[in-house]
Amino acid sequence: MTPKKIRILISNDDGIYAPGIYALYKELKKIGDVFVVAPDNEKSAVGHAITLSSPLRVFPFKRNGKFFGYAVNGTPADCVKIAHWALLKDQPVDLLVSGINHGSNTGINVIYSGTASAATEGTILRIPSFAISVATYDPVDFTVAARFARRLARLLLKKGLPPETFLNVNVPPVSESEITGVEITRQGKAVFAEEFDRRVDPTGRTYYWLTGKKVHLEREGGDTDDQVILQNKISITPIHYDMTNYNFLDELQNWNISVVS
Amino acid sequence: MTPKKIRILISNDDGIYAPGIYALYKELKKIGDVFVVAPDNEKSAVGHAITLSSPLRVFPFKRNGKFFGYAVNGTPADCVKIAHWALLKDQPVDLLVSGINHGSNTGINVIYSGTASAATEGTILRIPSFAISVATYDPVDFTVAARFARRLARLLLKKGLPPETFLNVNVPPVSESEITGVEITRQGKAVFAEEFDRRVDPTGRTYYWLTGKKVHLEREGGDTDDQVILQNKISITPIHYDMTNYNFLDELQNWNISVVS
Repeated sequence: MTPKKIRILISNDDGIYAPGIYALYKELKKIGDVFVVAPDNEKSAVGHAITLSSPLRVFPFKRNGKFFGYAVNGTPADCVKIAHWALLKDQPVDLLVSGINHGSNTGINVIYSGTASAATEGTILRIPSFAISVATYDPVDFTVAARFARRLARLLLKKGLPPETFLNVNVPPVSESEITGVEITRQGKAVFAEEFDRRVDPTGRTYYWLTGKKVHLEREGGDTDDQVILQNKISITPIHYDMTNYNFLDELQNWNISVVS
Repeated sequence: MTPKKIRILISNDDGIYAPGIYALYKELKKIGDVFVVAPDNEKSAVGHAITLSSPLRVFPFKRNGKFFGYAVNGTPADCVKIAHWALLKDQPVDLLVSGINHGSNTGINVIYSGTASAATEGTILRIPSFAISVATYDPVDFTVAARFARRLARLLLKKGLPPETFLNVNVPPVSESEITGVEITRQGKAVFAEEFDRRVDPTGRTYYWLTGKKVHLEREGGDTDDQVILQNKISITPIHYDMTNYNFLDELQNWNISVVS
């Protein structure tokens, strides 16, 4: 009996044209049937947005003259939803991989990340999921991250994940031989020192443009995503979408809040 | 010596025109100086999106012929960022309140919620924050929730919140006398049974529209946001944006993942 072929859904937030998703596709094809459903344009920093107030359209998309996947005029979360509930409705997938994102998804960025939101959506739909990013905005070779994604895909399918949890993977932008290890991390606390550039447009009207840079915090310790990447290690953080602060529940009970007090 | 006047920033995701933010404004004016910075149109289900690829514009907005606040062509998170880093740069606020949202922000919805994202953004900026919603999509009187927001604002400023944590408040859509209490809750597990309506547009092209309804889970117990609201109680959930699943860290360590295994 031949073993059942693995069915893998991939999406991203850089858009279906991006080189990162193509590198991922080529590696994952080696271990299963791959379905690509991704935004028709770049959707960075869309957070966990979904499209409720306008229709979604789905377009077949070719690479090198061959069918590659479906482009959707929506967000990464939309792509996963429409793949699950409409395009692949009768053939559920075994795994979802989101990426490979060009740029790290670490610390605070995780909450803004469309890459992470696709993995969150997969997790909500009870599909084992991970997100994978290469931690640089410079031009980069995605092969190292793609190969790691293939290996992790197999391991994850064997081991399984707890409910409501996906893995957020960040790969340093170096060659395979320069990677010094893999670390299990927590989401870091790096914040952004932000500014809004105040500018004037050609018609004389004021506009603002967000700018800012990440501030690494000394105090956050060595076991966070950002710190580990700086050591040329691959960071893997288990992320869950139950955002209740359980540690604060008891103290908040003691506030004794009443309706009219 | 007169006590320092409280400075309060309010935002929402229903837009600056919405009745909920106006009801909130009127009540919070009783206890402090209120600054309104809100989206210029409805931004539901935008998640924690921020605008990076286009400029933001800020427009003074009047109600009843008087200046009410600033409308921004961005998301709730954009509004809080631009208020903090540009509009109120030299005069930080003491409190951020997001709402009053028309419709519950409970369970899974918290991760899609623009209302929650404004409060998250405030929390990142170290402003004590809460989000408040009325749990119905029917026409509703926001007065009960607005009055509760005013009382909670005072209490929260007295008590303080732990780092990275805000309060997510949901008020049942009934009169004050019908509210049976206030409960500290956890984020529920209610999921959506979703469908995509497949339709054809007037030019013959296919499009999809997301639809679905919330499925309450019996097994989730009585201490979740959704369950408490069904009992006509106000639900308060402490939400934090560190999404690391700490309970899974040890097991994941034991996977012994290596770069090339």
